[in-house]
Amino acid sequence: MEDLGTARMETFSDGVFAIAATLLVLEIGVGTGADQHLGRALVDLWPSYLAYATSFLTIGIIWVNHHECMACMARVDRTMLFINIVFLMVVAFIPFPTKLVADHLQNQGEHAAVYAYDLTLLAMSVLYNVWWRYARHGRRLIAEYVPQSKLDAISRAFDPGIVLYLVVLAIAFVNPLVSVILTLILAAFYVPAGALFYRATG
Amino acid sequence: MEDLGTARMETFSDGVFAIAATLLVLEIGVGTGADQHLGRALVDLWPSYLAYATSFLTIGIIWVNHHECMACMARVDRTMLFINIVFLMVVAFIPFPTKLVADHLQNQGEHAAVYAYDLTLLAMSVLYNVWWRYARHGRRLIAEYVPQSKLDAISRAFDPGIVLYLVVLAIAFVNPLVSVILTLILAAFYVPAGALFYRATG
Amino acid sequence: MEDLGTARMETFSDGVFAIAATLLVLEIGVGTGADQHLGRALVDLWPSYLAYATSFLTIGIIWVNHHECMACMARVDRTMLFINIVFLMVVAFIPFPTKLVADHLQNQGEHAAVYAYDLTLLAMSVLYNVWWRYARHGRRLIAEYVPQSKLDAISRAFDPGIVLYLVVLAIAFVNPLVSVILTLILAAFYVPAGALFYRATG
Amino acid sequence: MEDLGTARMETFSDGVFAIAATLLVLEIGVGTGADQHLGRALVDLWPSYLAYATSFLTIGIIWVNHHECMACMARVDRTMLFINIVFLMVVAFIPFPTKLVADHLQNQGEHAAVYAYDLTLLAMSVLYNVWWRYARHGRRLIAEYVPQSKLDAISRAFDPGIVLYLVVLAIAFVNPLVSVILTLILAAFYVPAGALFYRATG
Repeated sequence: MEDLGTARMETFSDGVFAIAATLLVLEIGVGTGADQHLGRALVDLWPSYLAYATSFLTIGIIWVNHHECMACMARVDRTMLFINIVFLMVVAFIPFPTKLVADHLQNQGEHAAVYAYDLTLLAMSVLYNVWWRYARHGRRLIAEYVPQSKLDAISRAFDPGIVLYLVVLAIAFVNPLVSVILTLILAAFYVPAGALFYRATG
Repeated sequence: MEDLGTARMETFSDGVFAIAATLLVLEIGVGTGADQHLGRALVDLWPSYLAYATSFLTIGIIWVNHHECMACMARVDRTMLFINIVFLMVVAFIPFPTKLVADHLQNQGEHAAVYAYDLTLLAMSVLYNVWWRYARHGRRLIAEYVPQSKLDAISRAFDPGIVLYLVVLAIAFVNPLVSVILTLILAAFYVPAGALFYRATG
Repeated sequence: MEDLGTARMETFSDGVFAIAATLLVLEIGVGTGADQHLGRALVDLWPSYLAYATSFLTIGIIWVNHHECMACMARVDRTMLFINIVFLMVVAFIPFPTKLVADHLQNQGEHAAVYAYDLTLLAMSVLYNVWWRYARHGRRLIAEYVPQSKLDAISRAFDPGIVLYLVVLAIAFVNPLVSVILTLILAAFYVPAGALFYRATG
Repeated sequence: MEDLGTARMETFSDGVFAIAATLLVLEIGVGTGADQHLGRALVDLWPSYLAYATSFLTIGIIWVNHHECMACMARVDRTMLFINIVFLMVVAFIPFPTKLVADHLQNQGEHAAVYAYDLTLLAMSVLYNVWWRYARHGRRLIAEYVPQSKLDAISRAFDPGIVLYLVVLAIAFVNPLVSVILTLILAAFYVPAGALFYRATG
């Protein structure tokens, strides 16, 4: 069976990414009793805004990396399509634990919320590694013009992900707040990280 | 009237597939009274997680097959666009009975939930067969470079679908749980099946 | 200012069409008290299924026509983008009055529901005519290879739309049920109509 | 690290734009007690229709400008992808304060609602300027065939945006209604403005 082009996997993925990123805006709402003190009610909604922004930006960062890695691929195969679907299933789940953390941090249920959040991001990280390794292995899906050094740079950027997310999860047992902050730093780290690694390797 | 390219039918289909796949994540939520025992509440949500995962993966498998079959087509016509719309209408309905089964299996209402689920997948299977046969008949929409052996292999993979879904539906009258498990096995079977058939023929 | 290609107007439109078509599946749900008589509750939901199917198929038919007309265009301009946005705004509104009719037909509020439905489809029809006339006028956005006879055939198919929707709206004052049935026939008429007209003109 | 094509940034953006534009249709609904006076209930929903239309058209106008500016670009880079994500995050937020204004204007909570609305549009305007300046700076992402005069015309059209939105926000302290009307005029102004400026510069 011959391989397929990457276009439709990108279209479907972009659809899921777009829905996942915007999902938490649906959760932002003021109750009907808030008319008298709407200003106050809007300020009190800050955990919802924070959840929306964190979720949108986290999923946005994942999308950028997904995009950049796919730009190295010339084709996809059936196995890749399935790995990608499982990966997207976890990505579209991210808004749920993100909202849990925003609602419960520094409050009752804090530990459970942070575990759910860290586990989801760990699962995402594992699947992203599987996804990229599958594409990269023996340059299975990689376009000819992509230099090996670029593939190595990308792998170097993503390889520590799983271990770091495991550490962050372990920290959640001791201090949920620190764990959440480290998770956000980890996500933010992927913004410049890729670029830095690429530059280092040329 | 001349035929149309396949691009826009793919874009619209991918949009519906993406929405349908992510739909059940909207149904996952903990009540506001769960603050004290959030961990427990999150564990008790397992039927919702299961429904989300089953629905996402089932629709993902259908998307892969839709994608692979469309990769054989060089054009679509008006009739094909309408068949595709009716097919997508049933696909986007799948999350609803999936959630019903997750909520009612091994419980009150189990039979009705499983009938609804099996009937929906049967309807999907029938429409998928109509969709593929229409495209294939006399190579109506098929690209010239696609070998006949590939079309035969795809048909062999999908032909038993309707009968198998009918059997699964019949089993639901006797044992809903077994019927659901068989439905999932049937869906999972389509992951490697296509590839196996292709390999066998060429 | 130079003209733009049609690709992105198609992508955005397809996104809105896909969301609008699937929207009413969100409204299908059984109450939590239905566990004991789930089968019966599922049957009683028929107005929701009908609303979903009607809305999906109506929007699907509009999408096919939108698609076919855009296939005649080689470019779009700023004015066209804005007309298209107003048109899509009305299309994405269709699910709301469709649901109203499904919930109220043969019941209290029937007249109001049918007026809302017929007015929405009338607005859609008017905007679709504006949209097509703008593209067609002096072959403003039409690709060179499209024969004039095809443009004439499309116009002949859509020209009666506004008058027919006005008649259907007038009938709603006398008999809402008949009006709704005629609206559905009118929508269904657009499935083969285009093809028939095209064939007649070659 | 080499640059990426613009296709996937467009697909993802179009997905978010399509979701954001249609979002408020989800908020339109009549209560279940409205059966007896459905006509009246539908008329009383006018703030919801207004919010939907305003939100759809505002986001539509932003989309047209986003589209037209991207048509000048030949490539995007990692930084651009991130600026675009932050920008889209604010765009997908617009429906929320739009609904607030529709529900509270000329009523309790009016000031807070209008502040939220004006601040959101101000943030959008600031990010849009960052987005365009980044692309334009030293023709970083601009296609070679785009004349400098066109870039200047676009900048002239968008440069006053931030100041104007600041003025509109200041007016909200004195008169919320006037502020909202000016915001809508400002949005509407961007429909012909671009075209006018382009024409002036050729």
